[in-house]
Amino acid sequence: MQLGIVGMGRMGGNMRDRLRDAGHEVTGYDRDPAVSDVASLADLVDRLAPPRAVWTMVPATVTDTVVEQLCELLGPDDLVIDGGNAKFTDDAPRAERLARHGIGYLDVGVSGGVWGRANGYGLMVGGDAAHVQRLMPIFEALKPAGSYGFAHAGPVGAGHYAKMVHNGVEYALMHAYAEGYELMRQADLITDVPGVIKSWREGTVVRSWLLDLLDAALDEDPQLAALRGYAEDTGEGRWTVEEAIRLGVPMNVIAASLFARFTSRQEDSPAMKAVAALRNQFGGHAVQSSP
Amino acid sequence: MQLGIVGMGRMGGNMRDRLRDAGHEVTGYDRDPAVSDVASLADLVDRLAPPRAVWTMVPATVTDTVVEQLCELLGPDDLVIDGGNAKFTDDAPRAERLARHGIGYLDVGVSGGVWGRANGYGLMVGGDAAHVQRLMPIFEALKPAGSYGFAHAGPVGAGHYAKMVHNGVEYALMHAYAEGYELMRQADLITDVPGVIKSWREGTVVRSWLLDLLDAALDEDPQLAALRGYAEDTGEGRWTVEEAIRLGVPMNVIAASLFARFTSRQEDSPAMKAVAALRNQFGGHAVQSSP
Repeated sequence: MQLGIVGMGRMGGNMRDRLRDAGHEVTGYDRDPAVSDVASLADLVDRLAPPRAVWTMVPATVTDTVVEQLCELLGPDDLVIDGGNAKFTDDAPRAERLARHGIGYLDVGVSGGVWGRANGYGLMVGGDAAHVQRLMPIFEALKPAGSYGFAHAGPVGAGHYAKMVHNGVEYALMHAYAEGYELMRQADLITDVPGVIKSWREGTVVRSWLLDLLDAALDEDPQLAALRGYAEDTGEGRWTVEEAIRLGVPMNVIAASLFARFTSRQEDSPAMKAVAALRNQFGGHAVQSSP
Repeated sequence: MQLGIVGMGRMGGNMRDRLRDAGHEVTGYDRDPAVSDVASLADLVDRLAPPRAVWTMVPATVTDTVVEQLCELLGPDDLVIDGGNAKFTDDAPRAERLARHGIGYLDVGVSGGVWGRANGYGLMVGGDAAHVQRLMPIFEALKPAGSYGFAHAGPVGAGHYAKMVHNGVEYALMHAYAEGYELMRQADLITDVPGVIKSWREGTVVRSWLLDLLDAALDEDPQLAALRGYAEDTGEGRWTVEEAIRLGVPMNVIAASLFARFTSRQEDSPAMKAVAALRNQFGGHAVQSSP
């Protein structure tokens, strides 16, 4: 079927290629003419026969600007699909905005990163069943072969919600391996830490794709010597913990993995300055001066 | 090659079958005559030609009793391999005890549970390289096919140490999925929680064998209605956190997953009684009476 994709970055470009391999007629638009199939968003819409489907794959901060333009360019029975890493609370207002023009809306959480082109993308979709049904040929081509990698998670917003939880879980999974890795680095009994990580890849309870990636990283740099112990976050972990707070759900493990990232970004710790000051006050314990 | 296995429980029995399938001559001994190949431990030793190798696969509390008997029955150049879930600190004393009789010792962390019979067992081995080399035909048959699932982790104790860390990591991995699961159960946007879990099995960053098992459990019981939210622990998680404390390694995520299990086992919480009492004392906040 025909599909327009807005945003030919790493994700959008790879998705276009995977869809074309599956026989779909995909037109990609990007502000960068070097990677765009058309000169403008209007040209992209002109290339599609109604009812049209346009998939936005742009940074979450840009999505609403693109959607505003699409409100003018698209019409009744057309469909907008957002696959960006948007916050789920943006979806219902966006769906209402589009609905005033008779345009449908689906939100899709897309997982798989740079590996999705070859392996397929995990897709979590929110929206009306009729809209999901219409896009199924596209979802079928993007998802991995087999029974998994796709869910109609619920109404508008559910796709981004499920992806948010996916990413929150991902933070804690990564940190679980990371803590085990650090303990083995400190334990003199373990003389082959990369070997142990490699041994876990098959036959064990902890085998996973993230573990495979850790092994690949250790193959490249057995001590991870080139890296500083520093990690950014892109929002989904924060939103996951915010939702846990809103709904009163205990989330100690995911919250701890998020907070560990915050700690990794500090040059010095005001909290530990306070602890040092208090230990000095009540016990005369030695302190270290600020450098 | 010839191998004696002591302990024909779920693990030992399946390992015997897998080794026999690979052409090894395995004799199993168990106190239960219904599953034992021989009438006594002495008979098992008699069946093996020197230099002998005897693998203990019994509860950790029983291992030292068996090893004491093996000290009398075995002799110089024989080898004892312990594959139980022993604490790594037991290994060095055990190796010294056996060495006084000229008997070698390897400790092996074995992962894979009931699935190991078919998929192969993940093996983490501690001990001398010469002993490891001698047992390699057995390790090759027990481990999964391919490049992974086996490591010579370090000297005596390193096998059980690596398995301990594996299990500590496992606690936190399980709890990461569990927190994501609970959040989605509480979020009204997600109308198909088992469907989202299933979608994560392929193409996503969080795919893993543990996730596959969670999906299998939800196939059987979509609300997990038959289960109480209660989890035991078998020691490795505690030892992992104890090691983190001994070595000064931050381990917030694994510790939180361990403590969540402790919480799950409480009928009521003395700590939360104290919080309730304090809120009532300073703020007159309402309390709930003990039932």
